[in-house]
Amino acid sequence: MAIAFGRFDDSFSLGSLKAYLAEFISTLLFVFAGVGSAIAYNKLTSSAALDPAGLVAVALCHGFALFVAVAVGANISGGHVNPAVTFGLAIGGQITILTGIVYWIAQLVGAIVASFLLKFVTGGLAIPIHSVASGVGAVEAVVMEIVITFALVYTVYATAADPKKGSLGTIAPIGIGFIVGANILAAGPFSGGSMNPARSFGPAVASGDFTDNWIYWVGPLIGGALAGLVYPNLYMCAPTHAPLGDDY
Amino acid sequence: MAIAFGRFDDSFSLGSLKAYLAEFISTLLFVFAGVGSAIAYNKLTSSAALDPAGLVAVALCHGFALFVAVAVGANISGGHVNPAVTFGLAIGGQITILTGIVYWIAQLVGAIVASFLLKFVTGGLAIPIHSVASGVGAVEAVVMEIVITFALVYTVYATAADPKKGSLGTIAPIGIGFIVGANILAAGPFSGGSMNPARSFGPAVASGDFTDNWIYWVGPLIGGALAGLVYPNLYMCAPTHAPLGDDY
Amino acid sequence: MAIAFGRFDDSFSLGSLKAYLAEFISTLLFVFAGVGSAIAYNKLTSSAALDPAGLVAVALCHGFALFVAVAVGANISGGHVNPAVTFGLAIGGQITILTGIVYWIAQLVGAIVASFLLKFVTGGLAIPIHSVASGVGAVEAVVMEIVITFALVYTVYATAADPKKGSLGTIAPIGIGFIVGANILAAGPFSGGSMNPARSFGPAVASGDFTDNWIYWVGPLIGGALAGLVYPNLYMCAPTHAPLGDDY
Amino acid sequence: MAIAFGRFDDSFSLGSLKAYLAEFISTLLFVFAGVGSAIAYNKLTSSAALDPAGLVAVALCHGFALFVAVAVGANISGGHVNPAVTFGLAIGGQITILTGIVYWIAQLVGAIVASFLLKFVTGGLAIPIHSVASGVGAVEAVVMEIVITFALVYTVYATAADPKKGSLGTIAPIGIGFIVGANILAAGPFSGGSMNPARSFGPAVASGDFTDNWIYWVGPLIGGALAGLVYPNLYMCAPTHAPLGDDY
Repeated sequence: MAIAFGRFDDSFSLGSLKAYLAEFISTLLFVFAGVGSAIAYNKLTSSAALDPAGLVAVALCHGFALFVAVAVGANISGGHVNPAVTFGLAIGGQITILTGIVYWIAQLVGAIVASFLLKFVTGGLAIPIHSVASGVGAVEAVVMEIVITFALVYTVYATAADPKKGSLGTIAPIGIGFIVGANILAAGPFSGGSMNPARSFGPAVASGDFTDNWIYWVGPLIGGALAGLVYPNLYMCAPTHAPLGDDY
Repeated sequence: MAIAFGRFDDSFSLGSLKAYLAEFISTLLFVFAGVGSAIAYNKLTSSAALDPAGLVAVALCHGFALFVAVAVGANISGGHVNPAVTFGLAIGGQITILTGIVYWIAQLVGAIVASFLLKFVTGGLAIPIHSVASGVGAVEAVVMEIVITFALVYTVYATAADPKKGSLGTIAPIGIGFIVGANILAAGPFSGGSMNPARSFGPAVASGDFTDNWIYWVGPLIGGALAGLVYPNLYMCAPTHAPLGDDY
Repeated sequence: MAIAFGRFDDSFSLGSLKAYLAEFISTLLFVFAGVGSAIAYNKLTSSAALDPAGLVAVALCHGFALFVAVAVGANISGGHVNPAVTFGLAIGGQITILTGIVYWIAQLVGAIVASFLLKFVTGGLAIPIHSVASGVGAVEAVVMEIVITFALVYTVYATAADPKKGSLGTIAPIGIGFIVGANILAAGPFSGGSMNPARSFGPAVASGDFTDNWIYWVGPLIGGALAGLVYPNLYMCAPTHAPLGDDY
Repeated sequence: MAIAFGRFDDSFSLGSLKAYLAEFISTLLFVFAGVGSAIAYNKLTSSAALDPAGLVAVALCHGFALFVAVAVGANISGGHVNPAVTFGLAIGGQITILTGIVYWIAQLVGAIVASFLLKFVTGGLAIPIHSVASGVGAVEAVVMEIVITFALVYTVYATAADPKKGSLGTIAPIGIGFIVGANILAAGPFSGGSMNPARSFGPAVASGDFTDNWIYWVGPLIGGALAGLVYPNLYMCAPTHAPLGDDY
């Protein structure tokens, strides 16, 4: 583990301020599209129960929008767009605690603004929140979110953070978006498939309904932390340990 | 802001004429597929109200077709395929006003030709236009189009226009197409999810129905202009401001 | 125009024979998946009329499978997988007539073998053929196929054949697959959305039903030829015309 | 053929142990999402018969998840995620038998753990297994799996294993994922569309139901072996045969 607290003058340099703004914008655009697709389903079906075509619509929207949100932020802030990603990267020493805290604030504010914007542009429709499906317990939902967020943050490490990523870096944003699309297709009808505390928190604030919201903090943060422990320790050897050109 | 009017001899060089033709062809092919998918839904369902599977079909078609329309024009005209993109790039000084006006004409003519072609090949079926859904006001629709077009043009800047884009440039057309696919999945049942005055204008001409058409000019142009103000001023520093190798 | 007949010793070198085999394998795998998805729809719905979810299934399958069929052949045969692509490239001088004829044979045989394989593995189900929808005339269907095949072969030129394609070459197979996916979403309920004489001919042979089959030769070949006339003449200047480093 | 048994000290080096762990994690994440999407369909529809929208959901989930599972393992283990891929690569001399056996164990254990995890997080729902559809015989299902697995492993060779792959390598994981998505859209309603003994074995263990399970070993292993015979012998010339820079 290589957690670093960080220095105030680093975290509030001009470059850092631009990075915070990039996180705010990327998260706003991602949450606007993603939550918007859930409202769109309710509009088209008069709020019917989710069906497979609706699940495809919601999963594709999240996958496509996250791909782009990550891509447009990649060169500025790293394109986290997700407190669980930021946390997992802090655990692995890729970002300082101090900078990470401001990333969280930027992400949460972006998600809240997106949710209130959606309330306005849809003419005041209800903003749907993540919640646990009937027949699924809280522990099951937390474990589900742990597994799928582990997959997401592991993907971030392997395709974007690992200095030995090679040409994987070119398609990293697509992979990060599509693992979220795939996981929503699996987890949507159970835990909701959040993987992202900001994605869940924004709608909770805009709707004033925090039922189950803790699950989308605990699960994703544990899953992200696990990936931040596993990937760097296994596959990103410190330079002093591999001075002679290692392949792994 | 770095708007430039441009010189006539630049805007009517041989290279420029080829660029206008490329915009015409790319917009024609994009609008043909996109509007075609809406007619295809009507044909398959005898013009039933849109359902989630139909929304997926229309969103995927627009996303895939725009990706390709941008790609095939990228090296010739930059692959705008959209007056709002051209406007946002002019605001940020990436194209002169004069060249931009001819781009608009090429895009609009391409969209009109595509719409009339569709009328012919479908055996005279109605060409569906963008319009605001019941329960949604004009102001809400304009704001929706502003937000989603901002997302689109911000993506164009971050992945294609920014000289520091790096390997993002390789996947730029995919990102530009997929943000439109994602935004249609969210905005389709509300404002229609145009993001593109040409995409809305062509069918309006072919069907002779200009109801709500102003919304798809005002919203996308404001959204594109905002992205043209925000991205370059924040993230594309002029060389004189960052002579020593800046990261942001 | 730069059509070349070619020499027998070129067209029957070891490298050429490998290219023909690559075209055979790529076309077999593409047609197997694509036609297979149409049979799958019939199996799931007891041959109901196509609905929007089924159109998405068929379009995605063709788009994904063509992307891969083009990719796996790209370095060996160029990954045409389609007589209309081969014809369009011959018109633009990218392949000789003689080699092109053997490509056609390889593609047609691949499509026929795929169709008979499907008949076997599905337990003898009917192999669906491309045909014109009711309410659409033959001329309309031919024009539809011309437009969408023009889009396909124009994409092949811009992303794969143009020596100035740059990083577009990396995503060329995705673009080629996805323009076919987009066009099927638009044209599927009208002309069927073939764009490929081999894709239409294989099932016609396996089912013994050649109704409308001529449409899927005439339309795609005209569309491909038009792209082979337009793109190279406009955008691929001969070296002697642009000796000083042109951008277009 | 270039099968090599391998040496124990190679197969149990530190790098090899990391590769086995990478196969375990990648296969776990792939099977968790893929099988999860099948359970999600059952949850949403109260276990109705598969319909086209459900087939799209399951195929997209497998395609997206496999793309990412291959990508995140690519630089560590090669990202096989599938005993049929490992077998096909061993047949072509790309991996030793000894290392391949441990890959198989890692993949199977990953798939089993994923299946038991799914049983827990879904609150004890049934884990669906691959089985042959009514109206389809065992021989037909085996041949179906042979053809589609051949397509998959041929894709692995052309885009990832071939040293002359060039820029195809950048999009290789997308191609590998999407050929599986396409093939499920075709084969899902017949053989189930496995292409992967681990994907079929994990759910069989978790549900205790091994009906038809042999089909998903025999078919994929034969298909993978055929690709391992065809591609390298045709297109990957040994260095001694092509010392002067061959194109094929």
